[in-house]
Amino acid sequence: MSAPVNELYDPQRVLHSAEFKVFARDQFPQKDIKQNLAAFTNPRHDLHLVQKPVPTPGPGQVVVHVRATGICGSDVHFWKHGRIGDTMVVSDENGLGHESAGIVYSVGEGVTQWKVGDRVAIEAGVPCSKPSCDFCRTGRYNACPDVVFFSTPPYHGTLTRYHLHPAGWLHRLPDNVTFEEGALLEPLTVALAGIERSSLRLGDPLLICGAGPIGLVTLLCARAAGAEPIVITDLAPSRLEFAKKLVPSVRTVLISREETSKDVALRVRKTLGIEPALALECTGVESSVHSAIYSVKFGGLVFVIGVGKEMQSMPFMHLSANEIDVKFQYRYANQYPKAIRLVSGGLLNLKPLVTHRYPLEHAIDAFDTASDIKSGSIKVQIVDE
Amino acid sequence: MSAPVNELYDPQRVLHSAEFKVFARDQFPQKDIKQNLAAFTNPRHDLHLVQKPVPTPGPGQVVVHVRATGICGSDVHFWKHGRIGDTMVVSDENGLGHESAGIVYSVGEGVTQWKVGDRVAIEAGVPCSKPSCDFCRTGRYNACPDVVFFSTPPYHGTLTRYHLHPAGWLHRLPDNVTFEEGALLEPLTVALAGIERSSLRLGDPLLICGAGPIGLVTLLCARAAGAEPIVITDLAPSRLEFAKKLVPSVRTVLISREETSKDVALRVRKTLGIEPALALECTGVESSVHSAIYSVKFGGLVFVIGVGKEMQSMPFMHLSANEIDVKFQYRYANQYPKAIRLVSGGLLNLKPLVTHRYPLEHAIDAFDTASDIKSGSIKVQIVDE
Amino acid sequence: MSAPVNELYDPQRVLHSAEFKVFARDQFPQKDIKQNLAAFTNPRHDLHLVQKPVPTPGPGQVVVHVRATGICGSDVHFWKHGRIGDTMVVSDENGLGHESAGIVYSVGEGVTQWKVGDRVAIEAGVPCSKPSCDFCRTGRYNACPDVVFFSTPPYHGTLTRYHLHPAGWLHRLPDNVTFEEGALLEPLTVALAGIERSSLRLGDPLLICGAGPIGLVTLLCARAAGAEPIVITDLAPSRLEFAKKLVPSVRTVLISREETSKDVALRVRKTLGIEPALALECTGVESSVHSAIYSVKFGGLVFVIGVGKEMQSMPFMHLSANEIDVKFQYRYANQYPKAIRLVSGGLLNLKPLVTHRYPLEHAIDAFDTASDIKSGSIKVQIVDE
Amino acid sequence: MSAPVNELYDPQRVLHSAEFKVFARDQFPQKDIKQNLAAFTNPRHDLHLVQKPVPTPGPGQVVVHVRATGICGSDVHFWKHGRIGDTMVVSDENGLGHESAGIVYSVGEGVTQWKVGDRVAIEAGVPCSKPSCDFCRTGRYNACPDVVFFSTPPYHGTLTRYHLHPAGWLHRLPDNVTFEEGALLEPLTVALAGIERSSLRLGDPLLICGAGPIGLVTLLCARAAGAEPIVITDLAPSRLEFAKKLVPSVRTVLISREETSKDVALRVRKTLGIEPALALECTGVESSVHSAIYSVKFGGLVFVIGVGKEMQSMPFMHLSANEIDVKFQYRYANQYPKAIRLVSGGLLNLKPLVTHRYPLEHAIDAFDTASDIKSGSIKVQIVDE
Repeated sequence: MSAPVNELYDPQRVLHSAEFKVFARDQFPQKDIKQNLAAFTNPRHDLHLVQKPVPTPGPGQVVVHVRATGICGSDVHFWKHGRIGDTMVVSDENGLGHESAGIVYSVGEGVTQWKVGDRVAIEAGVPCSKPSCDFCRTGRYNACPDVVFFSTPPYHGTLTRYHLHPAGWLHRLPDNVTFEEGALLEPLTVALAGIERSSLRLGDPLLICGAGPIGLVTLLCARAAGAEPIVITDLAPSRLEFAKKLVPSVRTVLISREETSKDVALRVRKTLGIEPALALECTGVESSVHSAIYSVKFGGLVFVIGVGKEMQSMPFMHLSANEIDVKFQYRYANQYPKAIRLVSGGLLNLKPLVTHRYPLEHAIDAFDTASDIKSGSIKVQIVDE
Repeated sequence: MSAPVNELYDPQRVLHSAEFKVFARDQFPQKDIKQNLAAFTNPRHDLHLVQKPVPTPGPGQVVVHVRATGICGSDVHFWKHGRIGDTMVVSDENGLGHESAGIVYSVGEGVTQWKVGDRVAIEAGVPCSKPSCDFCRTGRYNACPDVVFFSTPPYHGTLTRYHLHPAGWLHRLPDNVTFEEGALLEPLTVALAGIERSSLRLGDPLLICGAGPIGLVTLLCARAAGAEPIVITDLAPSRLEFAKKLVPSVRTVLISREETSKDVALRVRKTLGIEPALALECTGVESSVHSAIYSVKFGGLVFVIGVGKEMQSMPFMHLSANEIDVKFQYRYANQYPKAIRLVSGGLLNLKPLVTHRYPLEHAIDAFDTASDIKSGSIKVQIVDE
Repeated sequence: MSAPVNELYDPQRVLHSAEFKVFARDQFPQKDIKQNLAAFTNPRHDLHLVQKPVPTPGPGQVVVHVRATGICGSDVHFWKHGRIGDTMVVSDENGLGHESAGIVYSVGEGVTQWKVGDRVAIEAGVPCSKPSCDFCRTGRYNACPDVVFFSTPPYHGTLTRYHLHPAGWLHRLPDNVTFEEGALLEPLTVALAGIERSSLRLGDPLLICGAGPIGLVTLLCARAAGAEPIVITDLAPSRLEFAKKLVPSVRTVLISREETSKDVALRVRKTLGIEPALALECTGVESSVHSAIYSVKFGGLVFVIGVGKEMQSMPFMHLSANEIDVKFQYRYANQYPKAIRLVSGGLLNLKPLVTHRYPLEHAIDAFDTASDIKSGSIKVQIVDE
Repeated sequence: MSAPVNELYDPQRVLHSAEFKVFARDQFPQKDIKQNLAAFTNPRHDLHLVQKPVPTPGPGQVVVHVRATGICGSDVHFWKHGRIGDTMVVSDENGLGHESAGIVYSVGEGVTQWKVGDRVAIEAGVPCSKPSCDFCRTGRYNACPDVVFFSTPPYHGTLTRYHLHPAGWLHRLPDNVTFEEGALLEPLTVALAGIERSSLRLGDPLLICGAGPIGLVTLLCARAAGAEPIVITDLAPSRLEFAKKLVPSVRTVLISREETSKDVALRVRKTLGIEPALALECTGVESSVHSAIYSVKFGGLVFVIGVGKEMQSMPFMHLSANEIDVKFQYRYANQYPKAIRLVSGGLLNLKPLVTHRYPLEHAIDAFDTASDIKSGSIKVQIVDE
């Protein structure tokens, strides 16, 4: 049984408003700062700009003028496949985007901590915070069954000019953190949550599988956390080169689809010069998970940050005979303040990750770039100034 | 590359001794306390008694007169299948048995902690204890690559009248712990190691999968550790009845092969009245592991004590979307002193687990009983008085 | 800076109501189920019954007819000393009592989980549950700076006939848990929180310092959690006898004021037969804390549940040279559901702890008994039927 | 009862050898590479060079030509005070020094992992490694009661030209790690052990108390582990300047002896801009420990690496009401391989810490510098080429 829709953010209100209007795919509206544009998809796998009403903040709410939004793989997935798993299904016009930062545009009644003009990052998942919710009450709010996660159906996303948000789930951006970095905090928190829940400690030999956006953010975090040595793997030489530029001391292992997972593991161990204690698996691909499992030492941990197929095989007896733990990350909880500290303090330089930028009126182009493997993009952002 | 054979316990010495003799399967030697009988198997899947020389203890060694030995599933597996995984292969005549207790029969030079007549449990796995061994030095000696594990090829087992053992790997039995209990300490340590490494704490709602010997020992430990409520599952009603007699407050779920893992999980949750935080999986069977995974709550742990197929499927996305940890137990380390405390202190009553007893001269019959599912046996022991 | 008073439970409203009336100490009102009696103290160290208005529940609130309330040492302390530490100061008429269970008497708007007649335990500390509160958001709500803890100044306590409470902080009592047990859940949760945050695991050798109410509840929990062996200490032989009756397998060490802490530690180790891994210190007395520190083994933990003097000496170098951890418990978080499971499941029998009972109209007598060391009382309860 | 002296390293053998000779304090022998010089102290608080026989390695032993040795505060303490605590007492001529690295000079029978000329760091504490030793068997070998710790009475230290050592307790230095860095690994392992056992994780706000050698090494480690922000305190402005040069992003708080611990804590919190989760206390001074305790947040940890007075006061109720954990570090276990990885991998630059160097023949001068607070020395090393 799914949770009832949260009335405060009921997606039907937008869809049934008089101002709601869908643009044709080849239509690029002129920039008009008063117009609340957004990027939407629907069950027919359309992707288009829409016009929405500018929201009015209720008690405890804030409207944010979104200044930068990154495109996540899940946004592309909702567009192309219409669903993630059995529970998140696009069943109507649905707004995309959940990696956003911006400026406070208006504040509702009782909001004392924000004023117009404050620079903020948006935490896209808003749990219920009720004492009766075991997960909220025990600090694991990413498991809240009543969460409103903007961009996960049925809730519209934050890839819009004016986004309505509860005041308690915004985070102040220090002056030295840009909006682009602010938008990158979202994928960063995923990596940070994984690193916090993994056993990663100073001096741990580490394997990172996959040099995509999450793998690269994870690499930055792992280097900042003192993992040493670090190997990163990928199928694409260009991504490994990108990783090397980002963190010159990282060692790389290029994966070939013809190689067995056990052979990959041997190369990982040889390149590291030691058996890793930990693998941070950022692809979710079965063969890569196997390589991670065969790589780590007795008593090691394979921590899966990536998502993959519903069912996957696992080398069960190898796991058993080597007491290898397997753990997984689902979204994040309590990571934003730490993420901001680390970026503001200069321990994490996220800037090189943004490879492409598009204005909000060209958001559809941004999706085309993000979904085109040949574009060489790492993180594509939509900016609005 | 496998470890070189430990010279002190070189199995060839027994096989090449003048006294070594194999009995025909239908031959039952008369009891002769001076004769060192043992149960052996070989690559042809024979199971027979053999006669071995009575060992002489070298420096730091002790000869134990074994008084009780339990038959483990792995003993039967070596006999019937000749191997466990790729690394433990029966390639010659090989002694079985590793669940043993007995009396010190003779002591070697420099042994000060034991004297003839002392009652002891035998810890069957003897690691190298060298500072250069990362696993021994860090307290995780069950991972020692140079371990001598008696009954794991090529080393002969402890199902013999006179067993040669290093003095440092025997454990004193208090007066109120019998030899049968002493022999049961070995499977107990497996369960205790699993419980120690799992998150099991007072008041945790718990699922135990499987009511075989390990499942039942695990049940005793879990009740002693304050898990509440506890559900145990099995395919056999008789085993669930046995579990109920052992721990009356346990709740039972009878598994049907026709039921899906998700349906089993629903019944588990319903019977518990709460989602378990932890599942102790004691079967290693794929469908049972799946049921465990679908049963535990977000953030829960499935801890696998059983062994299973080399490769098994896993509901990868369910694990990921629910942050379910999966861990495994391989043998044990540092559990014997605690096991003895718990049995001697009356917190664990192991006695009901021994359902069948045979004298050493009839050890082959004991194996027949242990391997016959219709016997209703839980633990079959070979005793020698 | 102290937190602003929570308007919903503003203590001044009671004090300024027309119905508020203080009874003389020697005045025992007739039982009148419509009258909302309560026990109050004030800065002059008076202790008296008062009459308060029967509260009307607002949205999300419930009025509970309190059926049993235990007297805690802190209640006596507020009465006799007027304060605990620098932050909890009795500065006006202040209601006592926070160990209570009862029946739902009326429910406010929007309360769906409770109906009149439901049997409930009252969790006396009500944190703010706001996302902006780091402690509430991360599951450590006992640290909430805006907590309303009933009976801690300025908030009135639950030792009253009709208590107004937020619906989210009541816990359903199963049919087999009495109101007296329901009231005992509060001190139980303190012990359970300590045991959860200590390293206590199955088979741990344990020292418990002090056989007062918290020490005895801790003893019950520790036995249920499989600690073995357990030593409990006290200055009073009668308390050790009580402990022995409660848990026959516990070993006792009678403390003499003349003995040094190091000598006590030697006796503890000798009585246990092993160095404890953990000491649960339930007195807060300096010499007892020292004994605990000298008793535990290298790498052990002294977990302090008791409260003591503002400043105390510690054997600093002994702690350092033996890597002994020291931890403390402050109230509790997330313990009620587990506490109820354990009592209802029969793992903890709290009933023998209630040694004295008084009707609400004689609450003052109950305090006299609770504060009289010669009474031999363990837990004194006020009941109302 | 103290452990019996380990025969292999019996200090009397050196003292009673024909070659043993004490130099007068003002005598500076000519450099003679065949002469085994060492720095010794005695119960009369003399400090002098001595001549010892060049040792011959027995089975499993190695003689190391020591190339660099750092002077530790404990070396100075043994010289000036003759003891540390009740168990480590200088009762005869006793060799100093335990922070050393060098070259393998000769190897004994059965030593296969080392050959003459290998560059090694010396782990100065050699535990018994016996299965019967609970601490060695469980990986906590720094607690071994039978440890031979070179320079702790009665064992002579490593501040000598030719040092006899068990082969298993040397660690290979990579080519890019100098002998000076190799000698600094010893204080580094203390800090690394503390950081491993503390809760320090990426992004943790951190307080470090004390900018002496251990405080500064801890600072390097904490920065490498991603603590952010970091405050370091000291009484000496020059030390804080040194800290700033070492780690420019560190924030500093100059302590004044007139300030209360609570006031220091307020300044620490203000300088950090957040309450620290963790304090690494590297002074052992009572007032500094108090400041650390008052600084950390509810649920925080004060981890004491420094040593201090036998008995010290603690703000007991503040610890209790804020659930502040207190932990301590005693020496180290299993840290050398990690330490070498981190230095070789460039994550820790120890080189700036060596402020003064002396040849072995002038070792006494080195001690004068190390013990003179006006010298401004951080780490003084004795080198021999």
